[in-house]
Amino acid sequence: MRILGIDPGSRITGYGIIEKQGNYLRHVIHGEVKPRKDSLLSIVLSSIYQQLSAVIERTAPQAISLENIFYGKNVRSLIKQAQVRGVVIFAGADKGIPIFEYSPLEVKKAVVGYGRAEKRQVQVMVKAILKLPVLPPADAADALAAAICHANFLKEQPI
Amino acid sequence: MRILGIDPGSRITGYGIIEKQGNYLRHVIHGEVKPRKDSLLSIVLSSIYQQLSAVIERTAPQAISLENIFYGKNVRSLIKQAQVRGVVIFAGADKGIPIFEYSPLEVKKAVVGYGRAEKRQVQVMVKAILKLPVLPPADAADALAAAICHANFLKEQPI
Repeated sequence: MRILGIDPGSRITGYGIIEKQGNYLRHVIHGEVKPRKDSLLSIVLSSIYQQLSAVIERTAPQAISLENIFYGKNVRSLIKQAQVRGVVIFAGADKGIPIFEYSPLEVKKAVVGYGRAEKRQVQVMVKAILKLPVLPPADAADALAAAICHANFLKEQPI
Repeated sequence: MRILGIDPGSRITGYGIIEKQGNYLRHVIHGEVKPRKDSLLSIVLSSIYQQLSAVIERTAPQAISLENIFYGKNVRSLIKQAQVRGVVIFAGADKGIPIFEYSPLEVKKAVVGYGRAEKRQVQVMVKAILKLPVLPPADAADALAAAICHANFLKEQPI
Protein backbone atom coordinates (compact mmCIF):
# COMPACT_ATOMS: atom_id res chain seq x y z
CA MET A 1 0.00 0.00 0.00
CA ARG A 2 1.28 3.37 -1.05
CA ILE A 3 0.72 6.28 1.35
CA LEU A 4 1.28 9.97 0.68
CA GLY A 5 1.89 12.07 3.77
CA ILE A 6 1.48 15.83 3.43
CA ASP A 7 2.41 18.65 5.81
CA PRO A 8 0.52 21.72 4.55
CA GLY A 9 2.04 25.14 5.19
CA SER A 10 1.70 28.55 3.60
CA ARG A 11 5.49 28.86 3.18
CA ILE A 12 6.50 25.22 2.73
CA THR A 13 4.29 22.21 2.07
CA GLY A 14 6.17 18.97 2.66
CA TYR A 15 5.20 15.67 1.06
CA GLY A 16 6.52 12.16 1.30
CA ILE A 17 5.49 8.79 -0.05
CA ILE A 18 6.12 5.43 1.53
CA GLU A 19 5.07 1.93 0.65
CA LYS A 20 3.89 -0.49 3.31
CA GLN A 21 4.78 -4.08 2.38
CA GLY A 22 3.67 -6.31 5.25
CA ASN A 23 5.48 -4.82 8.25
CA TYR A 24 8.18 -3.28 6.11
CA LEU A 25 8.05 0.40 5.17
CA ARG A 26 9.83 1.43 2.02
CA HIS A 27 10.65 5.07 1.22
CA VAL A 28 9.55 6.12 -2.28
CA ILE A 29 10.11 9.85 -2.55
CA HIS A 30 9.84 13.08 -0.61
CA GLY A 31 10.05 16.79 -1.32
CA GLU A 32 8.78 20.24 -0.50
CA VAL A 33 6.64 22.74 -2.38
CA LYS A 34 8.03 26.24 -1.76
CA PRO A 35 6.15 29.03 -3.52
CA ARG A 36 8.14 32.26 -3.85
CA LYS A 37 7.87 34.36 -0.70
CA ASP A 38 6.39 37.37 -2.47
CA SER A 39 3.71 35.36 -4.34
CA LEU A 40 0.04 36.26 -4.16
CA LEU A 41 -2.10 33.87 -2.12
CA SER A 42 -3.91 32.78 -5.28
CA ILE A 43 -0.56 31.86 -6.90
CA VAL A 44 0.58 30.03 -3.75
CA LEU A 45 -2.61 27.93 -3.68
CA SER A 46 -2.47 27.18 -7.41
CA SER A 47 1.16 26.14 -7.31
CA ILE A 48 0.60 23.86 -4.30
CA TYR A 49 -2.36 22.26 -6.08
CA GLN A 50 -0.44 21.77 -9.32
CA GLN A 51 2.70 20.35 -7.75
CA LEU A 52 0.81 17.98 -5.45
CA SER A 53 -1.39 16.88 -8.36
CA ALA A 54 1.76 16.07 -10.36
CA VAL A 55 3.15 14.05 -7.40
CA ILE A 56 -0.16 12.18 -7.03
CA GLU A 57 -0.37 11.40 -10.73
CA ARG A 58 3.24 10.24 -10.90
CA THR A 59 3.11 8.05 -7.77
CA ALA A 60 -0.53 6.90 -7.54
CA PRO A 61 -0.92 6.73 -3.72
CA GLN A 62 -3.86 4.77 -2.28
CA ALA A 63 -4.22 6.98 0.79
CA ILE A 64 -3.26 10.45 1.93
CA SER A 65 -2.35 11.17 5.55
CA LEU A 66 -2.37 14.60 7.21
CA GLU A 67 -1.80 15.99 10.64
CA ASN A 68 -4.58 17.95 12.32
CA ILE A 69 -3.96 21.65 12.49
CA PHE A 70 -2.14 22.63 15.66
CA TYR A 71 -4.38 25.10 17.52
CA GLY A 72 -1.64 26.82 19.53
CA LYS A 73 -0.61 29.14 16.70
CA ASN A 74 -1.66 32.73 16.26
CA VAL A 75 -4.92 33.19 14.40
CA ARG A 76 -3.44 34.77 11.31
CA SER A 77 -1.05 31.91 10.59
CA LEU A 78 -3.77 29.41 11.51
CA ILE A 79 -6.02 30.87 8.79
CA LYS A 80 -3.20 30.81 6.23
CA GLN A 81 -2.39 27.21 7.01
CA ALA A 82 -6.06 26.17 6.93
CA GLN A 83 -6.52 27.76 3.49
CA VAL A 84 -3.59 25.73 2.17
CA ARG A 85 -4.93 22.65 3.91
CA GLY A 86 -8.29 23.04 2.17
CA VAL A 87 -6.59 23.02 -1.22
CA VAL A 88 -4.38 20.06 -0.22
CA ILE A 89 -7.44 18.04 0.79
CA PHE A 90 -9.20 19.03 -2.43
CA ALA A 91 -6.15 17.99 -4.51
CA GLY A 92 -6.52 14.45 -3.10
CA ALA A 93 -10.32 14.41 -3.08
CA ASP A 94 -10.72 15.38 -6.74
CA LYS A 95 -8.57 12.36 -7.67
CA GLY A 96 -10.70 10.05 -5.52
CA ILE A 97 -8.01 9.29 -2.94
CA PRO A 98 -9.22 8.80 0.65
CA ILE A 99 -7.70 11.26 3.14
CA PHE A 100 -6.97 10.41 6.77
CA GLU A 101 -6.20 12.75 9.61
CA TYR A 102 -4.09 12.21 12.75
CA SER A 103 -3.32 14.42 15.71
CA PRO A 104 0.23 15.81 16.09
CA LEU A 105 0.47 13.57 19.18
CA GLU A 106 -0.38 10.43 17.19
CA VAL A 107 2.11 11.32 14.46
CA LYS A 108 4.95 11.98 16.88
CA LYS A 109 4.18 8.85 18.87
CA ALA A 110 4.28 6.82 15.65
CA VAL A 111 7.82 7.88 14.84
CA VAL A 112 9.51 9.03 18.04
CA GLY A 113 7.57 7.03 20.62
CA TYR A 114 6.30 9.99 22.61
CA GLY A 115 4.18 13.02 21.87
CA ARG A 116 6.40 15.97 22.76
CA ALA A 117 9.25 15.33 20.33
CA GLU A 118 11.19 18.20 18.75
CA LYS A 119 11.26 18.72 14.98
CA ARG A 120 14.88 17.48 14.85
CA GLN A 121 13.99 14.21 16.59
CA VAL A 122 11.25 13.60 14.01
CA GLN A 123 13.80 14.08 11.22
CA VAL A 124 16.29 11.71 12.87
CA MET A 125 13.69 8.99 13.51
CA VAL A 126 12.14 9.24 10.04
CA LYS A 127 15.65 8.86 8.56
CA ALA A 128 16.23 5.75 10.72
CA ILE A 129 12.82 4.13 10.13
CA LEU A 130 13.03 4.59 6.35
CA LYS A 131 16.81 3.97 6.16
CA LEU A 132 17.43 7.23 4.34
CA PRO A 133 21.04 8.15 3.47
CA VAL A 134 20.63 11.73 4.77
CA LEU A 135 18.35 13.69 7.10
CA PRO A 136 15.19 14.74 5.21
CA PRO A 137 14.30 18.47 5.40
CA ALA A 138 11.98 19.33 8.30
CA ASP A 139 8.67 19.68 6.43
CA ALA A 140 9.25 16.62 4.24
CA ALA A 141 10.14 14.70 7.43
CA ASP A 142 6.82 15.76 9.01
CA ALA A 143 5.02 14.60 5.87
CA LEU A 144 6.81 11.23 5.93
CA ALA A 145 5.97 10.97 9.65
CA ALA A 146 2.27 11.43 8.83
CA ALA A 147 2.55 8.68 6.21
CA ILE A 148 4.31 6.35 8.70
CA CYS A 149 1.58 7.12 11.24
CA HIS A 150 -1.13 6.02 8.81
CA ALA A 151 0.88 2.90 7.92
CA ASN A 152 0.86 1.98 11.64
CA PHE A 153 -2.69 2.91 12.59
CA LEU A 154 -4.61 2.52 9.31
CA LYS A 155 -7.65 4.46 10.51
CA GLU A 156 -10.74 3.41 8.63
CA GLN A 157 -12.74 6.62 8.56
CA PRO A 158 -11.54 9.16 5.99
CA ILE A 159 -12.26 12.89 6.30
CA MET B 1 -17.65 44.58 -15.59
CA ARG B 2 -18.92 41.36 -14.14
CA ILE B 3 -18.12 40.68 -10.48
CA LEU B 4 -18.63 37.43 -8.58
CA GLY B 5 -18.97 37.83 -4.82
CA ILE B 6 -18.50 34.73 -2.69
CA ASP B 7 -19.19 34.14 1.00
CA PRO B 8 -17.31 30.92 1.89
CA GLY B 9 -18.70 28.77 4.67
CA SER B 10 -18.36 25.13 5.64
CA ARG B 11 -22.17 24.72 5.78
CA ILE B 12 -23.30 27.23 3.17
CA THR B 13 -21.22 29.05 0.58
CA GLY B 14 -23.14 31.95 -0.93
CA TYR B 15 -22.37 33.41 -4.34
CA GLY B 16 -23.77 36.30 -6.34
CA ILE B 17 -22.92 37.97 -9.60
CA ILE B 18 -23.51 41.56 -10.52
CA GLU B 19 -22.61 43.65 -13.51
CA LYS B 20 -21.32 47.19 -13.14
CA GLN B 21 -22.36 49.34 -16.12
CA GLY B 22 -21.10 52.86 -15.43
CA ASN B 23 -22.67 53.71 -12.07
CA TYR B 24 -25.47 51.20 -12.52
CA LEU B 25 -25.33 47.80 -10.86
CA ARG B 26 -27.28 45.01 -12.48
CA HIS B 27 -28.07 41.76 -10.67
CA VAL B 28 -27.18 38.69 -12.74
CA ILE B 29 -27.67 35.67 -10.50
CA HIS B 30 -27.18 34.45 -6.95
CA GLY B 31 -27.32 31.16 -5.12
CA GLU B 32 -25.94 29.01 -2.34
CA VAL B 33 -23.87 25.83 -2.30
CA LYS B 34 -25.12 23.60 0.51
CA PRO B 35 -23.28 20.31 0.84
CA ARG B 36 -25.20 17.66 2.80
CA LYS B 37 -24.66 18.09 6.53
CA ASP B 38 -23.24 14.60 7.02
CA SER B 39 -20.78 14.86 4.13
CA LEU B 40 -17.06 14.18 4.58
CA LEU B 41 -14.86 17.27 4.47
CA SER B 42 -13.29 16.02 1.22
CA ILE B 43 -16.76 15.78 -0.37
CA VAL B 44 -17.74 19.23 0.92
CA LEU B 45 -14.61 20.80 -0.59
CA SER B 46 -15.02 18.97 -3.90
CA SER B 47 -18.64 19.92 -4.26
CA ILE B 48 -17.94 23.59 -3.47
CA TYR B 49 -15.16 23.60 -6.06
CA GLN B 50 -17.31 21.94 -8.70
CA GLN B 51 -20.37 24.10 -8.21
CA LEU B 52 -18.40 27.35 -8.12
CA SER B 53 -16.42 26.26 -11.19
CA ALA B 54 -19.71 25.68 -13.01
CA VAL B 55 -20.95 29.15 -11.97
CA ILE B 56 -17.68 30.74 -13.12
CA GLU B 57 -17.73 28.95 -16.45
CA ARG B 58 -21.37 29.82 -17.06
CA THR B 59 -21.10 33.49 -16.12
CA ALA B 60 -17.46 34.43 -16.92
CA PRO B 61 -16.83 37.02 -14.16
CA GLN B 62 -13.82 39.36 -14.53
CA ALA B 63 -13.20 39.65 -10.80
CA ILE B 64 -14.01 37.76 -7.62
CA SER B 65 -14.65 39.55 -4.35
CA LEU B 66 -14.43 38.01 -0.87
CA GLU B 67 -14.72 39.17 2.69
CA ASN B 68 -11.76 38.68 5.03
CA ILE B 69 -12.29 35.99 7.57
CA PHE B 70 -13.85 37.32 10.76
CA TYR B 71 -11.41 36.56 13.59
CA GLY B 72 -13.95 36.61 16.42
CA LYS B 73 -15.14 33.05 15.84
CA ASN B 74 -14.05 30.00 17.75
CA VAL B 75 -10.91 28.38 16.41
CA ARG B 76 -12.56 25.21 15.17
CA SER B 77 -15.06 26.99 12.94
CA LEU B 78 -12.34 29.43 11.84
CA ILE B 79 -10.26 26.50 10.56
CA LYS B 80 -13.26 24.97 8.78
CA GLN B 81 -14.11 28.24 7.10
CA ALA B 82 -10.48 28.90 6.10
CA GLN B 83 -10.22 25.45 4.49
CA VAL B 84 -13.28 26.22 2.37
CA ARG B 85 -11.90 29.67 1.62
CA GLY B 86 -8.66 28.17 0.31
CA VAL B 87 -10.61 26.03 -2.16
CA VAL B 88 -12.81 28.99 -3.16
CA ILE B 89 -9.74 31.12 -3.90
CA PHE B 90 -8.18 28.24 -5.83
CA ALA B 91 -11.37 27.77 -7.88
CA GLY B 92 -11.01 31.35 -9.11
CA ALA B 93 -7.21 31.32 -9.39
CA ASP B 94 -7.03 28.23 -11.57
CA LYS B 95 -9.31 29.97 -14.07
CA GLY B 96 -7.10 33.06 -14.09
CA ILE B 97 -9.63 35.37 -12.39
CA PRO B 98 -8.19 38.04 -10.07
CA ILE B 99 -9.48 37.80 -6.49
CA PHE B 100 -9.97 40.81 -4.22
CA GLU B 101 -10.49 40.88 -0.50
CA TYR B 102 -12.38 43.37 1.68
CA SER B 103 -12.87 43.61 5.42
CA PRO B 104 -16.35 42.88 6.85
CA LEU B 105 -16.44 46.59 7.78
CA GLU B 106 -15.81 47.69 4.19
CA VAL B 107 -18.45 45.30 2.85
CA LYS B 108 -21.11 46.44 5.33
CA LYS B 109 -20.29 50.10 4.75
CA ALA B 110 -20.65 49.56 1.00
CA VAL B 111 -24.22 48.31 1.32
CA VAL B 112 -25.65 49.55 4.62
CA GLY B 113 -23.56 52.68 5.12
CA TYR B 114 -22.11 51.71 8.47
CA GLY B 115 -19.96 48.85 9.72
CA ARG B 116 -22.03 47.20 12.44
CA ALA B 117 -25.05 46.20 10.39
CA GLU B 118 -27.04 43.05 11.18
CA LYS B 119 -27.37 40.22 8.65
CA ARG B 120 -31.01 41.17 8.01
CA GLN B 121 -30.09 44.77 7.16
CA VAL B 122 -27.57 43.51 4.62
CA GLN B 123 -30.29 41.41 2.98
CA VAL B 124 -32.72 44.35 2.88
CA MET B 125 -30.15 46.77 1.44
CA VAL B 126 -28.85 44.29 -1.15
CA LYS B 127 -32.45 43.73 -2.27
CA ALA B 128 -32.96 47.51 -2.60
CA ILE B 129 -29.63 48.27 -4.33
CA LEU B 130 -30.09 45.50 -6.90
CA LYS B 131 -33.90 45.95 -7.17
CA LEU B 132 -34.54 42.29 -6.41
CA PRO B 133 -38.17 41.11 -6.24
CA VAL B 134 -37.61 39.20 -2.97
CA LEU B 135 -35.13 39.15 -0.09
CA PRO B 136 -32.08 37.05 -1.09
CA PRO B 137 -31.08 34.30 1.39
CA ALA B 138 -28.53 35.47 4.00
CA ASP B 139 -25.36 33.93 2.57
CA ALA B 140 -26.16 34.86 -1.02
CA ALA B 141 -26.89 38.41 0.23
CA ASP B 142 -23.43 38.51 1.88
CA ALA B 143 -21.88 37.34 -1.38
CA LEU B 144 -23.76 40.00 -3.38
CA ALA B 145 -22.66 42.57 -0.78
CA ALA B 146 -19.01 41.60 -1.36
CA ALA B 147 -19.55 42.01 -5.11
CA ILE B 148 -21.19 45.45 -4.59
CA CYS B 149 -18.27 46.42 -2.35
CA HIS B 150 -15.78 45.63 -5.10
CA ALA B 151 -17.91 47.48 -7.66
CA ASN B 152 -17.65 50.58 -5.42
CA PHE B 153 -14.01 50.40 -4.35
CA LEU B 154 -12.33 48.54 -7.22
CA LYS B 155 -9.19 47.72 -5.26
CA GLU B 156 -6.26 47.23 -7.59
CA GLN B 157 -4.18 44.70 -5.72
CA PRO B 158 -5.52 41.14 -5.94
CA ILE B 159 -4.67 38.49 -3.37
